[in-house]
Parts: sequence; structure tokens; C-alpha cells
Amino acid sequence: MLSLRECIAEAVKNKVAVGHFNASTLDGVWAIADVAFELKLPVIVGVSEGERDYLGVNEVAAIVASIRKNRNQAIFLNADHTYSFERVKEAVDAGFDAVIFDGAKLSLEENIIVTKKCVEYAKEANEKRNTESGKSGSVGECLIEGELGFIGQSSKILDEIPAGAAVSEDQLTKPEDAVRFVVETGVDLLAPAVGNIHGVVVGGDPALNIKRVKMIAESVKVPLVLHGASGNSADDIRKAVKAGVAIVHVNTELRLAYRSGLVKSLSEDPEEVSPYKYLKPAKLAMQKVVEEKLRIFNGL
Amino acid sequence: MLSLRECIAEAVKNKVAVGHFNASTLDGVWAIADVAFELKLPVIVGVSEGERDYLGVNEVAAIVASIRKNRNQAIFLNADHTYSFERVKEAVDAGFDAVIFDGAKLSLEENIIVTKKCVEYAKEANEKRNTESGKSGSVGECLIEGELGFIGQSSKILDEIPAGAAVSEDQLTKPEDAVRFVVETGVDLLAPAVGNIHGVVVGGDPALNIKRVKMIAESVKVPLVLHGASGNSADDIRKAVKAGVAIVHVNTELRLAYRSGLVKSLSEDPEEVSPYKYLKPAKLAMQKVVEEKLRIFNGL
Repeated sequence: MLSLRECIAEAVKNKVAVGHFNASTLDGVWAIADVAFELKLPVIVGVSEGERDYLGVNEVAAIVASIRKNRNQAIFLNADHTYSFERVKEAVDAGFDAVIFDGAKLSLEENIIVTKKCVEYAKEANEKRNTESGKSGSVGECLIEGELGFIGQSSKILDEIPAGAAVSEDQLTKPEDAVRFVVETGVDLLAPAVGNIHGVVVGGDPALNIKRVKMIAESVKVPLVLHGASGNSADDIRKAVKAGVAIVHVNTELRLAYRSGLVKSLSEDPEEVSPYKYLKPAKLAMQKVVEEKLRIFNGL
Repeated sequence: MLSLRECIAEAVKNKVAVGHFNASTLDGVWAIADVAFELKLPVIVGVSEGERDYLGVNEVAAIVASIRKNRNQAIFLNADHTYSFERVKEAVDAGFDAVIFDGAKLSLEENIIVTKKCVEYAKEANEKRNTESGKSGSVGECLIEGELGFIGQSSKILDEIPAGAAVSEDQLTKPEDAVRFVVETGVDLLAPAVGNIHGVVVGGDPALNIKRVKMIAESVKVPLVLHGASGNSADDIRKAVKAGVAIVHVNTELRLAYRSGLVKSLSEDPEEVSPYKYLKPAKLAMQKVVEEKLRIFNGL
């Protein structure tokens, strides 16, 4: 089976993107796993700090490792938006396949210092993993993703663009900053601000700056990650992937689908008390979104 | 840490019972784990065939093993009501700590034949586990529980006692049948029909036959398990434990609490789309029931 690094390299080569979907529940993890398995595509399960606290940091790592091993499926686990070195360390130690240190709100200098520390920690851990390899179910190292440019922090429906989020041309990540950040930190992946924002803005998200995506992709030597793709048009996402995005994140749209599926199911059968029965329609609603997105990311 | 067999032996010695609680979700597993951890009591997470299919057979085993290892907690996993040898085998292979083969609807002869086959399979697997010990997170062998006497199959609110369920004195498990069943099958645990039924009957479950519990406990050499304790009075459960019950099962009451907690939380915050936020009150409602029951089972 390919490692996460290899799956991303394949995506870059084929000008497609690996899907990154968030989960707060085990059936959410299964929704993501089942669709990707069916479509024979690699996939990344993302868990924010809040999501991984609810699932259990070690437990979600054990779940993804178990699915990967038992189905021989290219499914990977990413610690989404992690705001401190301590929490990055925790995810690396738990055996995550990737971790995002999100220093987008820090100054470029501070962001570089902490991100670099995270990269160094992961590299040491990877070497240790290699020495002990064969023991865990792991298929590879833990990658570190850096984030440059603030795009908001919410995964909800928003009435307006979050304060401070980079949307005007001069606020977007500058290619020269991206180059400096990647070179000085040694990150494996970079998430720039290219007009994307977290959450879904009522009336539609602003358009992505595809020109900026292309400029950054041509300037740095690492694959790019597009966060906050919930709410962006399929056409915008397709163009961003063609321009050099190798991983696309979706969360809010999955949450909306899961909640609606759940509310509908609970109201349709007020007598049903088995969670695995009334949660199933929520899982299926989430699967529909995952499938739709994976088809867009992979030109299917 | 004590093994499941040792925890049960301790319970028998102290005339208390180990709690067995069902889960269909990861937060349900955490609800059970968190309360037992807080109260410093051993606990068994039960998963029916439907529950374990939703959680993932291997994944729920990985979750419980992870919690046990990381917290050094005496938490165990039981494959609740399993209706075929193939599914017993699957759970033993996945590393469950206990499995119930439920042949209560079969004739005594047929029940003995299949239960015995399950016991033999588990014994072989245990020997293999011992040889390879140290590798998995396992703390011991897989126990097999047999079931004698039909008590229904539902975990819902019922308008009446399920058809065929043993409630009159002549339908309850007879001590001489229990002895024959235990001796011929070699089961580690026995679940008899002593007036208990699955589900919660509107207006209250019928009373348990404590005399019969005592007679069976004095006749067989294995610990007794009380299924379907949702709906039974605290007093009845306390008496059954004193009379020789070492494990008590609760499911329906947890499901009712989880669903009410969830419905309330969803209606109170119609804008909240983060599952880990709107599910939390459901988890807490379940915890309340687990705590109440563990206190009853342990005379706290």
C-alpha cells in the first residue's frame, strides 16, 4: 500500500486532489472510509482539537489503523488545525499520519519558529518509528503541514466573512513568504490563504484566487492544501486542483448533512431508541457529500 | 491489572456485580469508560451483533484495548447475544474479552452442541494468545457465556412481555438443566432465565425470582449473569446480586437516556452543527444512568 506521502505525490502527478474530511464520530469515520473504499481512492480523515478530544486521540488513531490494516485501505489520519506544539507532539506520539500546526494568526517569524520545532519533533519520531517498524500498523512517517495566512476558524454557516480572514489580494499568502516559510521550517505540506475561508458563507463563499494558487504552487517545492473548501463552487475547486492543490479539506458541508440526516431520522421514528438505527441516515447523508466531493477532486 | 475472570471472581467474593453496559457509538463507550474510571470499578462494554456491525468489530476491539492500555483501566469488551458460531468466532478472533453464544431459542440439546463448539474454539484461541502474549494489548483470555431460557430479544420499551419469554415458575431455567448445560459445554459464565426480560415493560418489569437465582447459583460452579436488567427495580437487582449474580446487563435504559439527551440538545440549539457539541449532552445523560446502576450493583 502507498504511504500518505506517495498518495499525495500521485495526486500531484495526475493533477487530482486527495480528499480530507473531518469526523467527530466513529460513524463519521466510517462514512469517509466506506465511500473512499468504494471509489478506490486514498482519503484523509481530519480531526480538529475538539473533534479528537471527543473521539479520543489514541482511540481515533487506533480506529484508522484498524480500518487500514483490515481492509488494506489507503486511509490516513490528520490532526487538523493544531494550535500548540504540545498538541502537535501528542498527535505525532499517537501515530497520526499528518499534523497541521496552525500558526496563521502568529507573525511570520513566530509561525516559522514553532512550525520548525514541530517539523523537527516529527522527524525524530519518524526515525524512531522506522527503527521499530513492523510493530505498529503504520505505513509511514508523520507529515507536518504549515499554515500561512488567516482564513477563520469556524466550521459553521456564517452570515459574513470572518473578521481578519484574508480575502483581498494584498491579504492573501505572498509567494515570497511561502518560499521563505517552507525553506526555513522544512514543512512537508503548505496551506496558503488564497481566498478560501473556513465555514460556509450565506449566499456562497467568495471566489478562490486561482492565479495566486498557481503562483504559490510554482514557487514552493511542497504540495499545497486547500482548507475551508465547504461552500466553494465545484468549478472553483476543480480549477484550484488543476493549478496545484493536492489536498482539499471539507468539514462544514459534512456537518450540515449529518445533522439534517439525524434530525429527519429522529423525527420520522420517534419510537426508535437504537442509536445504530437512527444514526444510519445521518451517516448516509454524510456519505453523499463525501462522494460528491471526491468525484470533484478526482475529475470523476 | 486484573483480568476479566479475576474481576468477576472478586465480585463473587464481595457479593457485588460487574456492570455490563451496551454501546452503539464511540461516545457511548466513553460514557461507560469514564464513569467506571471515576468510580474505580471494573466494567464491561457490551455490543450486540447490530451494535458491533455499526461500530466495526475490529474497531470496537481496538478502542477498548486502547482505553485499557492508555488509562490502565479494567475495561472489557463482550460480544453480547451472538446467534451463530461464525459470529462467535469473529469476535474471539477480533480479541474480545468475552462472547455470549445465545442458543436460548434452541432445544437444550442443540444449545449444548453449539455452545460447546464455541467454548472449544475460544480455548484454542486463548492458548494461541498465551503463546503470543505481550504482543497485543490483551490482559487475558476470551470467556464464553452460555444462555439458558428465553427472555426476549428487544432493547426497547415494550407494551407487554415478549411472546415466549420465561416468566412463570415452570418456564424459568431449572437448576438441573443449568448444571447439565454448564458441565457439558464448559462455559465460563451462565445467563439463566429468572424472570428477567430484555427491554423495559411499560408499567414496570415483572419481579425477578430471587429464590431461583439462589438455587441455580448454588447448583452450578460458574458465575451467573443477569441480562435485561433495564426496568428491574433497584431492590430486585440488589437481591439478585446478593443471591449470586456476578454480572448485570443494562441496555434499554441507556438508549432511552441517550436519545432524550440528544433530542433535547438538538432542539435547544438548532444552529449547532458540531456533532461533538450536540452529542455531549446525550453522552452525559447516558453517564448518569451508568453511574446510578454501578452504584446499585456495588452497594455504593
